[in-house]
Amino acid sequence: MKGIFISIEGPEGAGKTTVIEDLKNYMLRSSADCLFTREPGGIAISEQIRDIILNTKNTSMDGRTEALLYAASRRQHLVEKVLPALNNGRIVICDRFIDSSLAYQGYARGLGIEEVMSINQFAIEGNMPDLTIYLDIEPEIGLARIAMNKSREINRLDLEKLEFHKKVRDGYKTLQNKYNKRIKEVDASKTREEVFQDVLKVFKETLNAKGIII
Amino acid sequence: MKGIFISIEGPEGAGKTTVIEDLKNYMLRSSADCLFTREPGGIAISEQIRDIILNTKNTSMDGRTEALLYAASRRQHLVEKVLPALNNGRIVICDRFIDSSLAYQGYARGLGIEEVMSINQFAIEGNMPDLTIYLDIEPEIGLARIAMNKSREINRLDLEKLEFHKKVRDGYKTLQNKYNKRIKEVDASKTREEVFQDVLKVFKETLNAKGIII
Repeated sequence: MKGIFISIEGPEGAGKTTVIEDLKNYMLRSSADCLFTREPGGIAISEQIRDIILNTKNTSMDGRTEALLYAASRRQHLVEKVLPALNNGRIVICDRFIDSSLAYQGYARGLGIEEVMSINQFAIEGNMPDLTIYLDIEPEIGLARIAMNKSREINRLDLEKLEFHKKVRDGYKTLQNKYNKRIKEVDASKTREEVFQDVLKVFKETLNAKGIII
Repeated sequence: MKGIFISIEGPEGAGKTTVIEDLKNYMLRSSADCLFTREPGGIAISEQIRDIILNTKNTSMDGRTEALLYAASRRQHLVEKVLPALNNGRIVICDRFIDSSLAYQGYARGLGIEEVMSINQFAIEGNMPDLTIYLDIEPEIGLARIAMNKSREINRLDLEKLEFHKKVRDGYKTLQNKYNKRIKEVDASKTREEVFQDVLKVFKETLNAKGIII
């Protein structure tokens, strides 16, 4: 793998989209060749799999079926989009990757981090990100941000969601502790500019370690 | 699990369909409640997954993506169809199950039996068959049978070379050695009646061991 593989992680409302937008704008000024993607990323087979996951008629879907489908979609997106870019020496920035499955399915939904890791290891065959930027946010703040975006008040469903969001965060924290060399935490409660500077710091460190100066 | 779970395995041309037909007829005379099934078995989510696997446009499908999709389809079929029947004390006879993935994807396609086992263990959560009847046949004979049987459409696997069929058989033999308590081999080169009597012998032994006399 000649390129550099970076994933951006965090719960809803952490500001992933904003950080990625800022990174895109920043990289416009750089000569480094960057691919921004997220699963299923326009890969036909991955899109077909994602359609099954998101099909509202599939209410009976078991949690393990869902986790296997996410892993299958991940595999195909990796093989068809991520690996060819990395083999061409590009920087690949992926909006969510393996840690989303570990935090959401493995931890928050209770399937087990190790168990969800095992099917994802099968899917990615050792192609772990060189760097994972984890945007950390208090669940209450994250949910408030989502609510603001939708210009509506927090309702009962949002409050039920709070427990789940807390679990997702616990999951990410557990992963960050376990893989602290790969996963770098950024405090996403700061201002947009502050968050971006913190992101840029770990981003540049990883690139510099591979001999790329931006 | 109150019921009894039995899978029928073997390469193409081994005569699985015939054996299952004979078992169905035999069980008509019995008071034991038997469910015959095969993945995706009419389970909507499993059918959708199988459609992706069989879609001839999906030529770029990676072997690991395919193995994960089979595991996902298996999971949903197990949860929605096999387990409810077993929990109701029924005998479930499944045409192909985990060993097909292990022999075809794991061994013959080279993904590794242990690796394919790991994702399938995630899928089946310990619900292994009580008995697996493996119909053993020389690849040359199996292929000749397929060629002779004109009432049946030739599928993609039929067209694989003899080498692949040999590998599938080696895979099944490896599995039979490894799991010799669960997997019982039947010589499928004998006459229909002889094969069925051999199948019936291991079938009855398993049922009797669970206190069911047929």
